[in-house]
Amino acid sequence: MKTIKIGLLGLGNIGTGTYKTLEMNKVQITEATGLNLEISKILERDTTRERDITVVPQQFTQDPDEIFRDPEIDIVIELLGGIEPATTFMLEAMKNKKSVVTANKAAVAANFEKLAETAKANQVEFRYEASVGGGIPIINALTTVLQANQFVEIQGILNGTTNYILTQMTDFGLNYEDVLKKAQELGFAEADPTADVEGIDVANKLSILIAILFRSYVAPGQIPTQGISNITPEDIAEAKAENSKIKLIACARMEEGQLTYSVKPTKLSSDHPLAAVSNEFNAVYVTGNAVGELMFYGKGAGPLPTGSAVMGDVLEIAKKITSR
Amino acid sequence: MKTIKIGLLGLGNIGTGTYKTLEMNKVQITEATGLNLEISKILERDTTRERDITVVPQQFTQDPDEIFRDPEIDIVIELLGGIEPATTFMLEAMKNKKSVVTANKAAVAANFEKLAETAKANQVEFRYEASVGGGIPIINALTTVLQANQFVEIQGILNGTTNYILTQMTDFGLNYEDVLKKAQELGFAEADPTADVEGIDVANKLSILIAILFRSYVAPGQIPTQGISNITPEDIAEAKAENSKIKLIACARMEEGQLTYSVKPTKLSSDHPLAAVSNEFNAVYVTGNAVGELMFYGKGAGPLPTGSAVMGDVLEIAKKITSR
Repeated sequence: MKTIKIGLLGLGNIGTGTYKTLEMNKVQITEATGLNLEISKILERDTTRERDITVVPQQFTQDPDEIFRDPEIDIVIELLGGIEPATTFMLEAMKNKKSVVTANKAAVAANFEKLAETAKANQVEFRYEASVGGGIPIINALTTVLQANQFVEIQGILNGTTNYILTQMTDFGLNYEDVLKKAQELGFAEADPTADVEGIDVANKLSILIAILFRSYVAPGQIPTQGISNITPEDIAEAKAENSKIKLIACARMEEGQLTYSVKPTKLSSDHPLAAVSNEFNAVYVTGNAVGELMFYGKGAGPLPTGSAVMGDVLEIAKKITSR
Repeated sequence: MKTIKIGLLGLGNIGTGTYKTLEMNKVQITEATGLNLEISKILERDTTRERDITVVPQQFTQDPDEIFRDPEIDIVIELLGGIEPATTFMLEAMKNKKSVVTANKAAVAANFEKLAETAKANQVEFRYEASVGGGIPIINALTTVLQANQFVEIQGILNGTTNYILTQMTDFGLNYEDVLKKAQELGFAEADPTADVEGIDVANKLSILIAILFRSYVAPGQIPTQGISNITPEDIAEAKAENSKIKLIACARMEEGQLTYSVKPTKLSSDHPLAAVSNEFNAVYVTGNAVGELMFYGKGAGPLPTGSAVMGDVLEIAKKITSR
């Protein structure tokens, strides 16, 4: 049995979910792959918080270099969130010949090309399945099974908070402010919900999808972006009367060589598969010139769904390393 | 630019769709991967049929050994359909150190272990994404991104013909025989529809999914299988009255170490995501202990969707070969 050692940057909610995914499925993972994955070092300030996982004090470090310079560590998982210091840490890990896995859409979208090029230059892997759609396996599908297609269009519901708010407004005729307050109480929305409700989080994810689908980098700030904070019960009622639903849709389309893209509240006919995607669920609807229309649906956030995607990436890298 | 030569067994509808997928997207595939894929030899009796693709007579052969013994061919695509001679040909290709890609659910389900073991023993790849769900990237998702999960359950609508018939019976109150006749006229059902309407095709696909999800081989004939030929307009009306829809569901579930499975017409509440999957579309609904519920939706058959999945597999193998 081969052991692969992993350094983890950040043991917050997502870091804990990732750790837990490995902990609860370790026996099965080892049976299926013959690999023993071990998170040997964790960069995290808060070493005392109750997390319902088994971590010993010796795993914690306050110095990222202890991870980057550890010759036994092959893979670094970055789950700090935010653009910096996450980006600098990922680049540093790559320069030290560590493969990198991240769930950090802000950092990947802001520095897509630099991260991809640095990984290539250092002959390491860089994977970010969890950065778009959480547990939904969209990025790997686009880059493997679907790679023989020319893509025509992608439409996505890529943010659970806004989809929850719009679903509750639609189903119960409530207004935006009341639902937002309820979502915050339930933990579905953050205290400062700006990045979610103004579409910034979705623009980050669309930037990443455009880079993969159309091999073209568009910075999130260049994507025309409109959030849902101005949606009124009247807008919702008007859509209902037309047998439609309002969803916050990220869209990118290639038509006659012209790429267009936007993030905005969009009326979808109730027949559209995306119209049935409710509450905190996410979905991606993609059209390829050979495969036709496909939809991927699942939990776009949360510690365990995100941990599932992160550990899937880690295992793909581990299999490559051990097959060399 | 590296050239990878491919041998193709069968140039019927699916073979033609696969050939066409490569032909129409060749420039983009080469740009994205740096690979030049070339279908250099084709085993096919009918060399004169009009196919709307560019094939020269020199590509055709009537002797499979011309493909198996060609040292320039790295990958064999098997699209003959049926268990034999397809299985024998795939094993022969593997023994000659060719990787194999197939869309043939009957052959894969009947000989799953033998094919997997022979590929392993000969250190070649064996991929069969197109055998379940046509263009839907389910198999690769289960074996890569989702591999850190323990799977709890899978439910699938895995046959377009039966889903078309049930949808038409539901939407228009028609009876089984009339819809089957219409489906046959439209080309959605075969002249002898037995394999589709009696659930045999679905049992093949479920056998493959069980092998991947639960690492356990169950022969298609061992799966309790019931088709849709006895479904009456009264059954459909009864389901409607309960706000449900009847779908032909393939299901496998692991509960307390016990694996259960079946193929049968099943009442689904109209809220269930699978209830919205209409006509010729397929979908797979899978639950993992980390990722939660996921659904994959798309075209489960047809020359181009199937060709998309076949060429995706071919490209994954080609990338591995050239990275050695």
